[in-house]
Amino acid sequence: MAASSSLFSTSFQGVISFQNTNLCYKEFNCKYSNFIRKQSGHSNSKYLTHSRLFPNERSSEFGQNEKFSQKNVFLCRALKIENLPSFSVGNKFQLTDVIEAQQFDRDLLSAIFEVARDMEKIEKNSPGSQILKGYLMATLFYEPSTRTRLSFESAMRRLGGEVLTTENAREFSSAAKGETLEDTIRTVEGYSDIIVMRHFESGAAKRAAATAGIPVINAGDGPGQHPTQALLDVYTIEREIGKLDGIKVALVGDLANGRTVRSLAYLLARYKDVKIYFVSPDVVKMKDDIKDYLTSRKIEWEESADLMEVASKCDVVYQTRIQRERFGERIDLYEEARGKYIVDSRVLEVMQKHAVVMHPLPRLDEITVDVDGDPRAAYFRQAKNGLYIRMALLKLLLVGW
Amino acid sequence: MAASSSLFSTSFQGVISFQNTNLCYKEFNCKYSNFIRKQSGHSNSKYLTHSRLFPNERSSEFGQNEKFSQKNVFLCRALKIENLPSFSVGNKFQLTDVIEAQQFDRDLLSAIFEVARDMEKIEKNSPGSQILKGYLMATLFYEPSTRTRLSFESAMRRLGGEVLTTENAREFSSAAKGETLEDTIRTVEGYSDIIVMRHFESGAAKRAAATAGIPVINAGDGPGQHPTQALLDVYTIEREIGKLDGIKVALVGDLANGRTVRSLAYLLARYKDVKIYFVSPDVVKMKDDIKDYLTSRKIEWEESADLMEVASKCDVVYQTRIQRERFGERIDLYEEARGKYIVDSRVLEVMQKHAVVMHPLPRLDEITVDVDGDPRAAYFRQAKNGLYIRMALLKLLLVGW
Amino acid sequence: MAASSSLFSTSFQGVISFQNTNLCYKEFNCKYSNFIRKQSGHSNSKYLTHSRLFPNERSSEFGQNEKFSQKNVFLCRALKIENLPSFSVGNKFQLTDVIEAQQFDRDLLSAIFEVARDMEKIEKNSPGSQILKGYLMATLFYEPSTRTRLSFESAMRRLGGEVLTTENAREFSSAAKGETLEDTIRTVEGYSDIIVMRHFESGAAKRAAATAGIPVINAGDGPGQHPTQALLDVYTIEREIGKLDGIKVALVGDLANGRTVRSLAYLLARYKDVKIYFVSPDVVKMKDDIKDYLTSRKIEWEESADLMEVASKCDVVYQTRIQRERFGERIDLYEEARGKYIVDSRVLEVMQKHAVVMHPLPRLDEITVDVDGDPRAAYFRQAKNGLYIRMALLKLLLVGW
Repeated sequence: MAASSSLFSTSFQGVISFQNTNLCYKEFNCKYSNFIRKQSGHSNSKYLTHSRLFPNERSSEFGQNEKFSQKNVFLCRALKIENLPSFSVGNKFQLTDVIEAQQFDRDLLSAIFEVARDMEKIEKNSPGSQILKGYLMATLFYEPSTRTRLSFESAMRRLGGEVLTTENAREFSSAAKGETLEDTIRTVEGYSDIIVMRHFESGAAKRAAATAGIPVINAGDGPGQHPTQALLDVYTIEREIGKLDGIKVALVGDLANGRTVRSLAYLLARYKDVKIYFVSPDVVKMKDDIKDYLTSRKIEWEESADLMEVASKCDVVYQTRIQRERFGERIDLYEEARGKYIVDSRVLEVMQKHAVVMHPLPRLDEITVDVDGDPRAAYFRQAKNGLYIRMALLKLLLVGW
Repeated sequence: MAASSSLFSTSFQGVISFQNTNLCYKEFNCKYSNFIRKQSGHSNSKYLTHSRLFPNERSSEFGQNEKFSQKNVFLCRALKIENLPSFSVGNKFQLTDVIEAQQFDRDLLSAIFEVARDMEKIEKNSPGSQILKGYLMATLFYEPSTRTRLSFESAMRRLGGEVLTTENAREFSSAAKGETLEDTIRTVEGYSDIIVMRHFESGAAKRAAATAGIPVINAGDGPGQHPTQALLDVYTIEREIGKLDGIKVALVGDLANGRTVRSLAYLLARYKDVKIYFVSPDVVKMKDDIKDYLTSRKIEWEESADLMEVASKCDVVYQTRIQRERFGERIDLYEEARGKYIVDSRVLEVMQKHAVVMHPLPRLDEITVDVDGDPRAAYFRQAKNGLYIRMALLKLLLVGW
Repeated sequence: MAASSSLFSTSFQGVISFQNTNLCYKEFNCKYSNFIRKQSGHSNSKYLTHSRLFPNERSSEFGQNEKFSQKNVFLCRALKIENLPSFSVGNKFQLTDVIEAQQFDRDLLSAIFEVARDMEKIEKNSPGSQILKGYLMATLFYEPSTRTRLSFESAMRRLGGEVLTTENAREFSSAAKGETLEDTIRTVEGYSDIIVMRHFESGAAKRAAATAGIPVINAGDGPGQHPTQALLDVYTIEREIGKLDGIKVALVGDLANGRTVRSLAYLLARYKDVKIYFVSPDVVKMKDDIKDYLTSRKIEWEESADLMEVASKCDVVYQTRIQRERFGERIDLYEEARGKYIVDSRVLEVMQKHAVVMHPLPRLDEITVDVDGDPRAAYFRQAKNGLYIRMALLKLLLVGW
């Protein structure tokens, strides 16, 4: 329920501004002062100017980035500015935080993917590999997620940036110390230029972003959001299939609980003529909120119990893990559910030559290992794409387009 | 008690030398050989020259720092050297370790604060940001303290240095492995250029410094010392109020157990015409040792039960957390104590315009969140100042003045 | 038993190739495709070329290393290639992984030691200190081993490389996530250029190396192997004594369980006229497999109960810790065993002037602390040599000879 309500909540804070447009997201919560802080100092966050009047305002002491900060604009119903100065690097969005999949519309996704492709081409010790030299990323993990943490840290380092790591952030809010998330953020923003946060509570990333004067990336907040996973999934489909409009995607496995497939369905609805097939055991079927949303966006969808038939028609078979913990003591239901839809060599046989198998990993036995050797097994490339997407986001948040 | 005895112990090893002076700290324990090792190699500690006669002596193979090592001098009753060569960068102290607040007299504090101010001005990717390039700091944490660790690691990285992290150092001395602290230090000094150590035992930092041939910084050793916190507190007062002589400071909250306020009182006694107010619940009053010390140094102090009246007179209201664990099963006493002196908007109203509220953090509810927006709320700036103080100390210990 | 079977197993995968020789290790398991992947991309592992046909094949986009990859050769009975192109940097071996002590013959050891000596001479901020700039090492630790981890991370950083750390790798294979080691490796190899792995299961490193397209270093896999420890031990003997042929070595302490002494005995058998003395309590005597192996290699060995007599004759007294956990509930046997052979000042007195005391650390009381001050106490230098050996291996695996 948390995931569902979070996925469709539309109040979020100051995360995107638009250039040359006076559109604004519905209910866009104009946290102007926070936004301006991030805009004027988003990449200059290292040293606070000690100002008693504006104790949290940052100075623009790093000339290299002033071109961005001076020309950033902010359009919102509550604060409409006409005669905008032109944006020096083109008509692009300015990203200030990455909090939830809903931030990203088709144009923004496309622009980010373009940067991600550039990231793929960066060579060791080339100038590109030093884009983020001097920048410091704090990975503030309230629960361990080694895979996600290593992906972000690798992304930062591949661009020449440095990392402050903690998988022990829960210590901040421990019974003994009991600090609020907001206080922790205010402390950590003093030590770093960007915060990548993993938290166990839905909505934590949004609270962190509202507090921080530096960019925040949500690396998963409880059952809520994991937007970089959603982005890398869509990026992978585009890289593997070559397009996003008109594709047919099968979402397989636990569709009730997986935030991954829910976010993916949501983002796919941004494209034209997409068809989505839901293939899942009865106990973990896709919930109505997503189905209703797809219908409202005129996205065709269909439930099916026949994986083979669906696989033969689709461009993408997106398999997910059935999570035992969702079944409580009903191990019998779990065992029945997990064995029902396995992607194996028989599924590969009916799949089209250009189609791919994806999986957010980790994988148990819902994809058999004999699939790994097939060129259509895209899941390890998908994991690698997470690196490029995160490189792109770090670059965009720290030094702009 | 441990804190008290530690605070006034005056035997410490080889931590400061004086230039152009033949004064020496009382009971200065002249660990000459260790000192010389640190002096000649303090910033050159990377590679041991393999010498069977002096297996721990370092070579001066890094030319850039020889100017410091060649000119360092060591004066002590036990080893007085006349006709000192002049110190190339001025008549400054040479720091070899940071172990306890008592190391720092007024002149040394002033000199360190000057460097800390320089640190505030260092810009991203400027030459200053590469001062410690090639240096490696090991954070050897026997208990987690994410806030302190991140602050040190940020400081090192902001100066271009690199970091080896462990919050798991207790593993070294685990039942299975059972290594002495000294053996661990001898191993870790082989891997790094400076050790930042957090330990659960009072005196551990002193033992580490006595063993190590590279600089050691005490990042808190049990109830003993946390000297960098004391330094950043005094630095913050100077930055916020503009002076240290003649200031009025209220120390509020748990004055019996907090090593922070005890060290702060001790350092404030180095300045002239200071007046200190103690405002605390009866069960956690400031102990007599500090009161006697202040009296002996002719520092005026006063106990008060009226926070409002004190706040109206002071330059600094230094609030602290009442720690539940100090009350054992007497939760009733804890609840009574913690609610007694809260800094809220009413306290702000009576405070002078130039005064500030400080807190070592983490904060629970002893300062209400509505205070945060007031320019006089200095505690997050105080946390940030920790970064500058630690940058200054790392610079001084590794490459000198 | 696991250690024993592992030590003499001779099936390992693609870890060494030989130049200008058509010899091949017995039962060398020619995993040709994996080998070729590592050869053509061993130092170019950063970015996968997205190829549907060879999804794991790396492109040679980093010109700097092509000279190695193009000229690497692979000789094996199963795949003999004649008319080899000459290897541009001389007739050297190409290392692709470091999995077990058995990989290393006399010539390879000698060549690695030469590189390690060069590593000792690298100065801070010299060109040599940037050999691995742009390279990223992942330390994938399934159990904590802070000493080993810090040594590897220091080595990487001393050469300008960067590090991704996890001591929490067991999370990957946790009950909740349940990923296979192979899947974890496929993910982590996407984030890094080399993997240093510590695992609790014998044989895990071999499995990782067989999967990874980037080099893998075994930093200890359960009771199996810890090859970098074996290398640094032999390197230390050569550094301290000046030779390896003709030396007399006493192995003291727990010889039944310690993988260290077993590997050392094995490697010493590669040299001429070596004599080995086994000095251990009855319950932890050296097992027959090693004795038989030494005999088969015509290495003289002798068991003795007289540490003093042995010490007076040896070049090296290699002491080890008696591990309590090996004795179960027989604390009495443990106490008897651990007190039996102590290296103290009396032992030093009978030792020759040029001889040394070694120990793999951590040390409890099997070497008394009064020995530490003697120039013949080589154990902390030995720990430091671990740094140089690991620097050498990282260099060789990432950029070749």
